[in-house]
Amino acid sequence: MGRNLVIGGLGAVGIYVVRALLENGEEVVIFDTRADLPPNAADVKGKAEVFKGDISNWVHVMEAVKKYDITSIYHLAAMLTQSSAADPQASFRVNVVGMMNVLEVARVFGVKDVIFTSSCATYGQITPPPKMVYNDTPQRPDTMYGINKLYCERLGEQYHRQYGVNFRGVRYSIVAGPARPPSYYFYDWSGIIEKTAQDKPYTAHVDPKIPCGYLYVKDGARALLELKNAPESKLRQRVYNIDGFLATITEVADTIKKYIPDAQITFDWDRGEDMRAFNNANSFKVDNTAATEDFGYRPRYLLDEMVQDFIQEVRKGRGG
Amino acid sequence: MGRNLVIGGLGAVGIYVVRALLENGEEVVIFDTRADLPPNAADVKGKAEVFKGDISNWVHVMEAVKKYDITSIYHLAAMLTQSSAADPQASFRVNVVGMMNVLEVARVFGVKDVIFTSSCATYGQITPPPKMVYNDTPQRPDTMYGINKLYCERLGEQYHRQYGVNFRGVRYSIVAGPARPPSYYFYDWSGIIEKTAQDKPYTAHVDPKIPCGYLYVKDGARALLELKNAPESKLRQRVYNIDGFLATITEVADTIKKYIPDAQITFDWDRGEDMRAFNNANSFKVDNTAATEDFGYRPRYLLDEMVQDFIQEVRKGRGG
Amino acid sequence: MGRNLVIGGLGAVGIYVVRALLENGEEVVIFDTRADLPPNAADVKGKAEVFKGDISNWVHVMEAVKKYDITSIYHLAAMLTQSSAADPQASFRVNVVGMMNVLEVARVFGVKDVIFTSSCATYGQITPPPKMVYNDTPQRPDTMYGINKLYCERLGEQYHRQYGVNFRGVRYSIVAGPARPPSYYFYDWSGIIEKTAQDKPYTAHVDPKIPCGYLYVKDGARALLELKNAPESKLRQRVYNIDGFLATITEVADTIKKYIPDAQITFDWDRGEDMRAFNNANSFKVDNTAATEDFGYRPRYLLDEMVQDFIQEVRKGRGG
Amino acid sequence: MGRNLVIGGLGAVGIYVVRALLENGEEVVIFDTRADLPPNAADVKGKAEVFKGDISNWVHVMEAVKKYDITSIYHLAAMLTQSSAADPQASFRVNVVGMMNVLEVARVFGVKDVIFTSSCATYGQITPPPKMVYNDTPQRPDTMYGINKLYCERLGEQYHRQYGVNFRGVRYSIVAGPARPPSYYFYDWSGIIEKTAQDKPYTAHVDPKIPCGYLYVKDGARALLELKNAPESKLRQRVYNIDGFLATITEVADTIKKYIPDAQITFDWDRGEDMRAFNNANSFKVDNTAATEDFGYRPRYLLDEMVQDFIQEVRKGRGG
Repeated sequence: MGRNLVIGGLGAVGIYVVRALLENGEEVVIFDTRADLPPNAADVKGKAEVFKGDISNWVHVMEAVKKYDITSIYHLAAMLTQSSAADPQASFRVNVVGMMNVLEVARVFGVKDVIFTSSCATYGQITPPPKMVYNDTPQRPDTMYGINKLYCERLGEQYHRQYGVNFRGVRYSIVAGPARPPSYYFYDWSGIIEKTAQDKPYTAHVDPKIPCGYLYVKDGARALLELKNAPESKLRQRVYNIDGFLATITEVADTIKKYIPDAQITFDWDRGEDMRAFNNANSFKVDNTAATEDFGYRPRYLLDEMVQDFIQEVRKGRGG
Repeated sequence: MGRNLVIGGLGAVGIYVVRALLENGEEVVIFDTRADLPPNAADVKGKAEVFKGDISNWVHVMEAVKKYDITSIYHLAAMLTQSSAADPQASFRVNVVGMMNVLEVARVFGVKDVIFTSSCATYGQITPPPKMVYNDTPQRPDTMYGINKLYCERLGEQYHRQYGVNFRGVRYSIVAGPARPPSYYFYDWSGIIEKTAQDKPYTAHVDPKIPCGYLYVKDGARALLELKNAPESKLRQRVYNIDGFLATITEVADTIKKYIPDAQITFDWDRGEDMRAFNNANSFKVDNTAATEDFGYRPRYLLDEMVQDFIQEVRKGRGG
Repeated sequence: MGRNLVIGGLGAVGIYVVRALLENGEEVVIFDTRADLPPNAADVKGKAEVFKGDISNWVHVMEAVKKYDITSIYHLAAMLTQSSAADPQASFRVNVVGMMNVLEVARVFGVKDVIFTSSCATYGQITPPPKMVYNDTPQRPDTMYGINKLYCERLGEQYHRQYGVNFRGVRYSIVAGPARPPSYYFYDWSGIIEKTAQDKPYTAHVDPKIPCGYLYVKDGARALLELKNAPESKLRQRVYNIDGFLATITEVADTIKKYIPDAQITFDWDRGEDMRAFNNANSFKVDNTAATEDFGYRPRYLLDEMVQDFIQEVRKGRGG
Repeated sequence: MGRNLVIGGLGAVGIYVVRALLENGEEVVIFDTRADLPPNAADVKGKAEVFKGDISNWVHVMEAVKKYDITSIYHLAAMLTQSSAADPQASFRVNVVGMMNVLEVARVFGVKDVIFTSSCATYGQITPPPKMVYNDTPQRPDTMYGINKLYCERLGEQYHRQYGVNFRGVRYSIVAGPARPPSYYFYDWSGIIEKTAQDKPYTAHVDPKIPCGYLYVKDGARALLELKNAPESKLRQRVYNIDGFLATITEVADTIKKYIPDAQITFDWDRGEDMRAFNNANSFKVDNTAATEDFGYRPRYLLDEMVQDFIQEVRKGRGG
């Protein structure tokens, strides 16, 4: 069955990929900049080894693949949107040089699969929102994060075309789940559930009425495994849009209150230009048709299912 | 008026940018991996200084910009299609890390302009040929060279958006002119004129009947200067398609014979799959409308004008 | 008077260099991987700007020097002995590539001074201890940290010889002072004072009887300024040994008890081979003669003065 | 018996290492920046494969070691003294980053041996000449080339000490042999024989009377194989001085005339300061005692034997 390397495996999405692989009975090595399991990942202790490494350092990538005789790589490490904007050169090293390191090592060692998480940030601003995004909607990213992800998609395709590296990727919309790193723009969608499940108050500041393209972390993780396991003959492209559902923060709050009636949620709408742009940029529904047809992906967690499960996960200690 | 750095200024296109700037009375420093002027560039001796540098080495870029107090950079250095395919990591260093070096140095030093040559290779395979390519035709490159050029376009836009670096670029179709480096796929279009103007026989192996999107080097060089000098308010985008004309190699040969009646040209059509793909990929006419409207670019050299001028250039000693 | 960049300026030694420069009325910019002042550095708030940067990233070094028009660099950033051993490639990037970044930027921008902290770790194992180390004792380092520091000394000399960069450096013995990062081997010498001054118990595990070559952080910082201000004509070399005094941990403990009679200190001597090697490697007195003659350096803090001052510093809130 | 990778195997020394290994019946892969065999290396055609690679590019090093399942690396690639002085950053990449690439790949892949060529340039200027240099003479290099070689020695030792990489190295004095690249300072010693053996005139410009520490390329190559094959228990150090003999250029000229009576040799002594420094820096005899005792190295080619053999080699077509 081989051995999987999950790069960024202690991140908010990565840890759910690790769990999904372990549930399948697969062997997993976690590659992360941290050496120790954080409290929210305590459940994988003894089940998956952790290799401390920096993806921008080729030696670490080569060493991990050689040492564990890796057959499949799930690559989920990235500097996110705001960090990438604050330091483009550092973003280049982690997101772009890191990808080259993965692809070159995979090519030379004959690693069978490279499964990559791209982003709907590769589509750039879409006006007016909400909008439908198809797999063939032209990609015109307008952030350092987005242009790097787009280039990584093209690099992966190139190593597939030229060397036969089995590169496959997904584009996520906004992923919600426990233990996401707090950030001003991207955190509301997870934080509102995480904090209230921890019996803490939460104040949301995104636009209460603009729906956001939303994907629950368990659907995101499962999509990667389904894509990895799809027969090559079924795939008509290398990178697939993956969607969950559209919801406004008001709808999220209302759903929380069904399960946590005394949740303390307040709204403090930030009407500034940056927030408006952020809300617009993420107000799209992505077309899952190709993912459904080619490898059977369909979201299992819509708003209600997600909120229930998310609360349970946090109460199991998987929150941040 | 400032001082211009022409990176790749001893290349086949770069040297014509150098000449065009000198004709305008501007100061020019050539940045190239070669230290000495090759015979075909002897005419710029004493008029432009040469700085020996490697664009993938940030120290060289920083040093050149600091030493000469550069105000505008024309960036024409690149590993071309076939070299990039043979060594993707080296192509990454020259074409991508090189671009980051230029943009970071330009940003920190406040260099006013960064003028960049991208390529219609960013559009990828187009079937069936010939086809019209518009500025907003989706870009789906399918070569290491093409994906790197596309990423460079996005990086330039990002440094403009985020830091105000005055990045402007063009996408060339196949550039013909003297002293192009011989290569199996791209050389026929120039070689057929260059060799016959040197009274040598020439055998073409591209498809005799598929027209190619063709741009004479003098039009390409002039387009860069016109774009650089356009008022910012006129520009509706950062990167513009630049075209010359469509012609088959048979038409090129016929035109040569008008001016060199005893030219020895033979055709040895390579009917292989790679050549077919190459011919198709380059059989497009690109729409100049945006370039014409925004900064007045129109090709001055169509087939007949190009052949006449090219022959004269070679006879002046500017061939390879 | 110019403007100073203190690289690693929020480190345990760097912050004392910052303070010494500020006391002289000089302008200071702190370059550090942290963006915010830690509590122990609260006193420099409003007096020195902090530039967040990574020395292994050339863009950060170039940008800091350009933005603040830096005339003198004090370079104190390093991955220390144990981190360097754990990840040689990362140590190479920070300690060696970082030094190249500093020297190249200094050279191209004409930064007047580059003041560097090397280490007596460049001498390697010395047996039997204790021993006298002279400036011309052959350097045979035997750790990744030590070989990197030695190479940095030679690089600095080379950029002085070849380009006139005013490189000057010091070799410290073990520096003691507040807020040193805890580490198994190097921390006892500072920790025993810091913790007891904070009314906490402390257990030392180094050999109670082998004396260690010891330097108080205020002497170390002052030595850099004295070296920087020495006339060029006085200097007979580029790198100078800087010493404080020799003391056993038992003597340190006894001195602490003079000023903190109820200090809770226990000894739990680690008799293992690694600790023995560590104690031997650091049991040397370095000869200050050259530093005294060439720029007037003499330690002001011997054991008793150091302990008194260190306790006061910690009680001012400068501990870790 | 394993498979050998000779990095820099088409260089003047490397090709003799290749030949020596082939004579022993060993398998050899040549790693060089050139893809094709130059005329002087035509004799190894069909006997050793050539891998085109750049040592400063980690992908090339990793790929060569993986592809050919290499068990021993002979690393002879370097930017030499004058190129290193002209571009220290490029020298850093080739000589230092290149060494890190070799050591990291060797460590991770478990390559059994890394045999390295250092240089007596690590000793720096020695005054007054001539002088004896012992293995434990302190190393104080004073050129970019020399400090890089010294650091590489220390890196090799560190990877041996820390990871058990079987690093072994030699320090050559000035190597003479066919096809050395012409250079103002280092070429006389080879050029005077090479050119006269090709029936061309030669003008020497080094000091006619200062003897130079001289090593014939066949002795240098053989020393590497002897060192590689020595039992570990015999080795008291990792890097050994290797010497040939001392001779003035006048003595070399006189010996040539014994075998080529009508050789046209003239002297045009460059009395400038740089040449004087060069002559002094290389006027030393290195002590071979350790090499003799530990692995039986003794020079077989003293002045007369070298001149005879060198002339024959050139006449076989092995000159530049």
